[in-house]
Amino acid sequence: MMMMEESDFLSCCGSTKFAKEMMAASPFSSLDQATQSANHIWFNIVDIHGWLEAFGAHPQIGDNSSTANKTRTSAEWSKGEQSTAMATATDSTLQELLEWNAQYRQKFGFVFIICASGRSTSEILAELKKRYPNKPIVELEIAAGEQMKITELRLAKLFTAKGMKTSLS
Amino acid sequence: MMMMEESDFLSCCGSTKFAKEMMAASPFSSLDQATQSANHIWFNIVDIHGWLEAFGAHPQIGDNSSTANKTRTSAEWSKGEQSTAMATATDSTLQELLEWNAQYRQKFGFVFIICASGRSTSEILAELKKRYPNKPIVELEIAAGEQMKITELRLAKLFTAKGMKTSLS
Repeated sequence: MMMMEESDFLSCCGSTKFAKEMMAASPFSSLDQATQSANHIWFNIVDIHGWLEAFGAHPQIGDNSSTANKTRTSAEWSKGEQSTAMATATDSTLQELLEWNAQYRQKFGFVFIICASGRSTSEILAELKKRYPNKPIVELEIAAGEQMKITELRLAKLFTAKGMKTSLS
Repeated sequence: MMMMEESDFLSCCGSTKFAKEMMAASPFSSLDQATQSANHIWFNIVDIHGWLEAFGAHPQIGDNSSTANKTRTSAEWSKGEQSTAMATATDSTLQELLEWNAQYRQKFGFVFIICASGRSTSEILAELKKRYPNKPIVELEIAAGEQMKITELRLAKLFTAKGMKTSLS
């Protein structure tokens, strides 16, 4: 069985506390077990500073030049997750997305987090506009939920990449 | 009518954003109007960083030597708010409170916030133990609510100190 390293978990979620706790809970017998642990750690053990740290490890949607990602793997995964958005983007929708992203960050103090896999630029933009009027505490909780969705997808990729079984069967 | 300064509002709530927004909404015709504005600003406009900044401006309950307070006024008010707790504290309850405070801070990443006015040390300790198992996001929201209660009491003191009318009558 291949062992995971802290940097593997950091590629899934950019909170140092999350990665350390996942290491402490390792090894996992299956992806399902790892996902359960990840959920427990993210929502019950990682504090607000850890959440903000993880959010800060994401590039702004549409910003390929970002150095936010903590590992090369997470940079590659970010690019893959945003591939639908980028494929459907025009110069003007991309510009609008960048402007709304800046406005969002100005209001909430962290980057707009969305599980972008398979979503077009216009879908992402619509979601951003819908979430923008939220209270900061509400938006924080939604962002944390989206981060968890991203983490789950990335854990699956990690297990696949490491050649580990991804189900109990 | 006496004018408020930014430092007056900062004494009520240690978020710089809060104080600036309160200044922008000034002058207030009554305490009631100021309280309404304060609630709106705190829950809708101040972001999570501002909440953490405000929490950080409180001394730990039982720690009189703290330099957390941003203004001399807020240091005096903290002392007054904790006077019941201090009057009812024994060496051992105070020690227990300090230990639980440290544990709380370790888990949540910010100091335990409670509107302490009129509460004994044992009441505060019981509340701390009750809140400790909460998820970070839940505790963040409770702490923000307690901060608002403290802010409301302090706004009333501020209006009294400035000789302004505290009701619409």
